[in-house]
Amino acid sequence: MKAPRIDSLQYANFSEEIFRQMRAGGVDAVHVTIAYHENFREMVLNLEQWNRWFEAHPDLIFKGTSAADVRRAQDTNRTAIFFGFQNPSPIEDDIGLVEICHQLGIRFMQLTYNNQSLLATGCYEAEDTGLTRMGRQVVREMNRVGLVVDMSHSGERSTLEAIDQSSRPIAITHANPHWWHAALRNKSDTVFRALTGSGGMLGFSVYPHHLQDGSACTLESFCSMIEEAAGRYGAAHLGIGTDLCQDQPDSVVEWMRVGRWSKVIDYGEGSASNAGFPPMPDWFKDNRDFGRIRNGLLQTSLTQAEVEGIMGGNWLRFFEEGFEPL
Amino acid sequence: MKAPRIDSLQYANFSEEIFRQMRAGGVDAVHVTIAYHENFREMVLNLEQWNRWFEAHPDLIFKGTSAADVRRAQDTNRTAIFFGFQNPSPIEDDIGLVEICHQLGIRFMQLTYNNQSLLATGCYEAEDTGLTRMGRQVVREMNRVGLVVDMSHSGERSTLEAIDQSSRPIAITHANPHWWHAALRNKSDTVFRALTGSGGMLGFSVYPHHLQDGSACTLESFCSMIEEAAGRYGAAHLGIGTDLCQDQPDSVVEWMRVGRWSKVIDYGEGSASNAGFPPMPDWFKDNRDFGRIRNGLLQTSLTQAEVEGIMGGNWLRFFEEGFEPL
Repeated sequence: MKAPRIDSLQYANFSEEIFRQMRAGGVDAVHVTIAYHENFREMVLNLEQWNRWFEAHPDLIFKGTSAADVRRAQDTNRTAIFFGFQNPSPIEDDIGLVEICHQLGIRFMQLTYNNQSLLATGCYEAEDTGLTRMGRQVVREMNRVGLVVDMSHSGERSTLEAIDQSSRPIAITHANPHWWHAALRNKSDTVFRALTGSGGMLGFSVYPHHLQDGSACTLESFCSMIEEAAGRYGAAHLGIGTDLCQDQPDSVVEWMRVGRWSKVIDYGEGSASNAGFPPMPDWFKDNRDFGRIRNGLLQTSLTQAEVEGIMGGNWLRFFEEGFEPL
Repeated sequence: MKAPRIDSLQYANFSEEIFRQMRAGGVDAVHVTIAYHENFREMVLNLEQWNRWFEAHPDLIFKGTSAADVRRAQDTNRTAIFFGFQNPSPIEDDIGLVEICHQLGIRFMQLTYNNQSLLATGCYEAEDTGLTRMGRQVVREMNRVGLVVDMSHSGERSTLEAIDQSSRPIAITHANPHWWHAALRNKSDTVFRALTGSGGMLGFSVYPHHLQDGSACTLESFCSMIEEAAGRYGAAHLGIGTDLCQDQPDSVVEWMRVGRWSKVIDYGEGSASNAGFPPMPDWFKDNRDFGRIRNGLLQTSLTQAEVEGIMGGNWLRFFEEGFEPL
């Protein structure tokens, strides 16, 4: 079977045009964000929006809930859409909602989004106190039902504790190494060694704030960073999680950053003079550009098998291990 | 394969004891009510309670969502629990919640519970105006996703219109013929002919207010009524839907009757002098008594094959046809 092409994070302003670009780019599966700050009831409205897209475009996309759906996508020339939360807000203060969300098809949940949550500490807080009492219980419940712990926006200590506490491998679906670009959102070598050493997966982001030289980052720089990461952590634990926010208005990056938790603007990874979505690098504008990343990786010392793994095969293996109840 | 034993309606105060009684009675599948007047968010809390029961008693029960789960229940000596609503209140005013509820495992939804709803008219209203504008759209959506229309508590005209509008057979999961006992909740010969003539199913209730002579109804009378119904409508369209409310306090029958729609008590099928749950007939107290109904039916002119169908085989066929998306 042909190696699949999988993107472990997108939050585009989805449309038929983007679904067609997924097909044009040969993208077999995409993990899409369906909640930033939504409570449970609001998140359900986002599910309804996706149900309408699935009903309207059955020739392009369908809802993915298992690794087998990636193969089904390949067999039927469609893209399987997997759901995730960037924040645990949809489970509110109720551990029973973990299983309900899994039953609704959610397959990834971040324990924090930048800020302190009920479960753990986000990467923008001054102090990281690790997993909370509820956080430890929720990780256990996520392990039981097959909801993947994602620590992309969490602080260092919380991330290390989640890796340690989780009985199943976890994911950082979209981030880059701090040693390549020292952004708060990028992760330390320590974190990546712990993550990959326990079977976890890392998805490399092409969101400019996570890139060396931002929007001007070259494909060569990005690919040589991945080559270096493969040497440090093993190519089998690496994938792509573009964090593609295509076609979103700047009001959405504001929602992502402040939700309802602040009355004043917080610029997050941006700044007052660079408040909106940054322009994407010229070699990755949309789903049709996945082949460019693949070609770039093939120019490195990575083997073709390693490159196919990074482009999707490794995520597929992780989906096989992560999504079913224990 | 042995014929299954299926109950198409229970709203007991569920407990390990009752689950053990299901096993003792050889009941392979039960359709349980998980909402009377709950809105969507409240209904989810009821799902969570069931998830806790499934986790605590995996040797006795599991969540059923397809006809294959009835066979799995037989193969593993457990009872498959299927979910339904007695009222469309959990979908609120949002047709998108029909598919969400199906994805959460709901397989039956009544369009009304005694009163006028957003979808249709209940059997206690003075005038029945049939399906509403939203009601017609929701029936179509229920047909599409595989959520069975149940008209047990609906008025005559609404029921006939639902049968007519639905592209798939519908159900009356728990009611008896008006010609046997003239209760408002029992259905006319016209309704049953239209229901069964379109492939629909009728589940006979043993709730005393639906029985000739109430709690004093004899097993012989109940079984000869079924025999007569088989002659009129065909045995293949008949099943059992006990409406068992075992171990419920009388506060629950009050909730069923008035929910939050009235500040004064409404006695429904009861009366001021008979306000609580009526005592069950002595031949049907709990799930262990299913064999008595079977034995009673075998005393009639019905063939053994017809009796096995009524005890569960007919519901199984209906589940096979009704629960999958179109």
